[in-house]
Amino acid sequence: VTHLVRNAYGKSRVRLTRVTRHPDRHDLKEVTIDVELEGDFEATYTEGDNRSVIATDTMKNTVYALARNHPLDHIEGFGVHLAKHFADGYEQVSSATIRLAEDAWTRISVDGNAHPTAFVGGSAEKRTCTVRRSGGATSVRSGLRDLLVLKTTDSGFSGFARDQYTTLKEADDRILATVVTAEWVYEEGDHDWNACFEAARLSMLERFATHHSLSVQQTLMDMGNAALEACPAISEISLQLPNSHRIPIDLSPFGMDNPNAVFVPTDEPFGMISGTLRRNRDGR
Amino acid sequence: VTHLVRNAYGKSRVRLTRVTRHPDRHDLKEVTIDVELEGDFEATYTEGDNRSVIATDTMKNTVYALARNHPLDHIEGFGVHLAKHFADGYEQVSSATIRLAEDAWTRISVDGNAHPTAFVGGSAEKRTCTVRRSGGATSVRSGLRDLLVLKTTDSGFSGFARDQYTTLKEADDRILATVVTAEWVYEEGDHDWNACFEAARLSMLERFATHHSLSVQQTLMDMGNAALEACPAISEISLQLPNSHRIPIDLSPFGMDNPNAVFVPTDEPFGMISGTLRRNRDGR
Amino acid sequence: VTHLVRNAYGKSRVRLTRVTRHPDRHDLKEVTIDVELEGDFEATYTEGDNRSVIATDTMKNTVYALARNHPLDHIEGFGVHLAKHFADGYEQVSSATIRLAEDAWTRISVDGNAHPTAFVGGSAEKRTCTVRRSGGATSVRSGLRDLLVLKTTDSGFSGFARDQYTTLKEADDRILATVVTAEWVYEEGDHDWNACFEAARLSMLERFATHHSLSVQQTLMDMGNAALEACPAISEISLQLPNSHRIPIDLSPFGMDNPNAVFVPTDEPFGMISGTLRRNRDGR
Amino acid sequence: VTHLVRNAYGKSRVRLTRVTRHPDRHDLKEVTIDVELEGDFEATYTEGDNRSVIATDTMKNTVYALARNHPLDHIEGFGVHLAKHFADGYEQVSSATIRLAEDAWTRISVDGNAHPTAFVGGSAEKRTCTVRRSGGATSVRSGLRDLLVLKTTDSGFSGFARDQYTTLKEADDRILATVVTAEWVYEEGDHDWNACFEAARLSMLERFATHHSLSVQQTLMDMGNAALEACPAISEISLQLPNSHRIPIDLSPFGMDNPNAVFVPTDEPFGMISGTLRRNRDGR
Repeated sequence: VTHLVRNAYGKSRVRLTRVTRHPDRHDLKEVTIDVELEGDFEATYTEGDNRSVIATDTMKNTVYALARNHPLDHIEGFGVHLAKHFADGYEQVSSATIRLAEDAWTRISVDGNAHPTAFVGGSAEKRTCTVRRSGGATSVRSGLRDLLVLKTTDSGFSGFARDQYTTLKEADDRILATVVTAEWVYEEGDHDWNACFEAARLSMLERFATHHSLSVQQTLMDMGNAALEACPAISEISLQLPNSHRIPIDLSPFGMDNPNAVFVPTDEPFGMISGTLRRNRDGR
Repeated sequence: VTHLVRNAYGKSRVRLTRVTRHPDRHDLKEVTIDVELEGDFEATYTEGDNRSVIATDTMKNTVYALARNHPLDHIEGFGVHLAKHFADGYEQVSSATIRLAEDAWTRISVDGNAHPTAFVGGSAEKRTCTVRRSGGATSVRSGLRDLLVLKTTDSGFSGFARDQYTTLKEADDRILATVVTAEWVYEEGDHDWNACFEAARLSMLERFATHHSLSVQQTLMDMGNAALEACPAISEISLQLPNSHRIPIDLSPFGMDNPNAVFVPTDEPFGMISGTLRRNRDGR
Repeated sequence: VTHLVRNAYGKSRVRLTRVTRHPDRHDLKEVTIDVELEGDFEATYTEGDNRSVIATDTMKNTVYALARNHPLDHIEGFGVHLAKHFADGYEQVSSATIRLAEDAWTRISVDGNAHPTAFVGGSAEKRTCTVRRSGGATSVRSGLRDLLVLKTTDSGFSGFARDQYTTLKEADDRILATVVTAEWVYEEGDHDWNACFEAARLSMLERFATHHSLSVQQTLMDMGNAALEACPAISEISLQLPNSHRIPIDLSPFGMDNPNAVFVPTDEPFGMISGTLRRNRDGR
Repeated sequence: VTHLVRNAYGKSRVRLTRVTRHPDRHDLKEVTIDVELEGDFEATYTEGDNRSVIATDTMKNTVYALARNHPLDHIEGFGVHLAKHFADGYEQVSSATIRLAEDAWTRISVDGNAHPTAFVGGSAEKRTCTVRRSGGATSVRSGLRDLLVLKTTDSGFSGFARDQYTTLKEADDRILATVVTAEWVYEEGDHDWNACFEAARLSMLERFATHHSLSVQQTLMDMGNAALEACPAISEISLQLPNSHRIPIDLSPFGMDNPNAVFVPTDEPFGMISGTLRRNRDGR
């Protein structure tokens, strides 16, 4: 009396440290990987017949085995490699989706020089990538998440709709803080993944800093446009910008003014602004 | 040279405590609510023109004001009320989505009796609901998340595919533990939301306990079927069941056997199994 | 030019699942264990000489090996067993401290009966225990943490000190919510650990429910006294009670009163109240 | 029949954003502050008599009011200011402890130049400080926490004790990763807090990078010595170094070697190494 209309399964949070030992330095990558497969797996749901099931433990092993001989210069390349392994190597798989999130590690500076084998980490920011392979085609989406930015001026919010539940005051100079999540879609094919990532990230940071914001929505649009301008291989970008409110403290009960100096940062509730921009096909 | 292909915004994590003071007892609800709107908001993205923008601060105020006169007997009813307020009350709104998550509080037992005004909480489990109103129609999805369950027997996993990366041993008696996320779709209209929720939840728990599992996939299918059987108003259910592995410890280096007694629970990596079941229209 | 004035090391977050398979039912314990040793370990700090170092990996193995033959009826008994193993079995160890935190699992109810092999968990509340063995003596502290409780009435806070920075209004009927952390000290020797734990926990819950609170401090004192009355083997108890504020919403901007009905729960900032009570030696 | 042997209370997680608006740039500090008082507060515990109680809400207000006119050049200075306010301004207070944790924000680089009003954050690392004032004396402890560091070589662990539960292999070239928590004690008096912090932090990072590690304990000792050498105003330092294991993957089941290239990072269990170093009084 029921039927299975969708099924998927995989291994999540496979964590990988990959060290490449060059004569003059070591390179370090730390990546967390999710593998998800769709395909002809209905028998295990309906009958407990596992003959077509690739164990999720096998997926984990595969990630480590394939990492052995892959340079891991960028998560996009390793994601494509994994997606092809699963989608092209097993008859029962109709699509493979690989999600990768890379931790940022930078070299420790010793006497002003980057140390060849010692690293400092700890940023919340992750570089991300989703590769999906299905029907012989591969799509690559890249992005970042948990990039915290804040500007102390050049941001306002006024002229918004007012009704009986509106108490918010207009602000022509407020703090704007957000935690950027961005994901962009690449045109099909191979690209200079690292250069594109760096250009998109840098352009969004610079635009955030220099732009005059009339609303978080407008900031989102400008940051998205900056990324599309910075990297021609990107056809579309989605951004999510929570409004990480810094609320001015009312010091008047203590006989003091607050010259836009003392604020309380709050985690909840928060505004959440999202949007997707696409490059016009005809370039207009 | 770009255009906005999707936009949405709202207020997330509006937290609400609602106490209803009856003569013989107090009722307590604690709910975290997200409001998200779509509609004619492009001008703020492209021009910073905020005239159509309902401030997210106003959304928060609205939640509290509407909670004042609503019984909040169930999150579904309050979600519908909020969705109608936003979708039907503002011309520029084309759809309103309300997400609600309720914390479980139970009465403290004093001398074996439920205390009328004192409560104990702390479960990770949340009752959830998503109401979407668009074009005059309202859809209601309900569910739960973070329901931890474990069975010490009646679970195996064998007969799966083997390749060069497979090392997992077949298991005919393993621990099965998972953290249930379930979301079901109601037929249009009004239903006995609390009775349906209780019936669906209880049936899934009982099926998990009594069922013999040949794979997590099969357990998912059986639990979904149980919910569909328990509540005729449900037309479809999606489940996500991470495999919260309990790995037997190899005690042989210490000259001991391990009679399925000593395990290490691990958080990562984990298998993730998902599926969606739909009731057949013709009842077959 | 420097000297080491204190050193300690160990293994943290050793997670253990222990299943005891009786003919009619299985018992389940899940415990997270920290082992910490002090002693004659200075040579590894100063010289990198590891000859006296018991590897933390060995500590982990020991936990699993000792769990194989221990009934684990209570975390106190297993903690004492581990502490003796490390403190009495190695010459270089001067003291061993074992910290244990147990997850709550209860049996799933099927048709009103407790199922023999299926469990539901997910409570934030942990039962805790710290065993320290040093110089041939063993001390046992037990407790709990993350026990969420809330009362909707019978709580006020008034008559407090006022100065130029005080804006808080007096409250004669407020919501009181807290997250109980309690740790008590047992008289030396062996006790009925499970009965004591249950009596102490229940008495604190009941006192919280039935007591009229004039301050969180007074509630702390009353709950501590309840535990000391409930279990004579306890000589001292420390409690930490954060004040998990539920702040009444001002609905007057919307033309509404708020009859103690609508509140916002906040996580930060929070009041934090702590205190330690000791039983008088002479019983007065 | 019981007495209160210790009591303390305060406000935790008071979050503060402080912007100082210079003509050519804005400075930004974000700090989370805990206030804790001890003193003559027994009457509220025993009688619910709140006359001596400074409400924790007042503490929060005081933090914001005092931040209005304080430059907040360093958390140490603001901590001392707050501690004196509470310890010296209220007769019933015998000691005040202020704990501060500062988020790292750095300026966004635009065309290679530090932007004057836009910032990027997101590091887990916090700069910390604990100021305690009691009996007219003030002690200052400063430090940091959640500083992630990793070295891919120059670290081993061998020659440790072996018993029947030891399975760990000796390692002469392993990855060493840790999350540094450090807290140092300053000599009484005023110091150049920012210069000392920077010198201590930098010296520990450099020592971690360049030192050859025979055990985490030895690394701890060397890092502590580096900080004591870098800042003469520090008399003592405590470090906690969890061993954030990177475990080499055994690729032999797949017919591959693993040339120290592929690892799994694990969060639990973890080794935890701690130690306290004190400068010798006589300089030897």
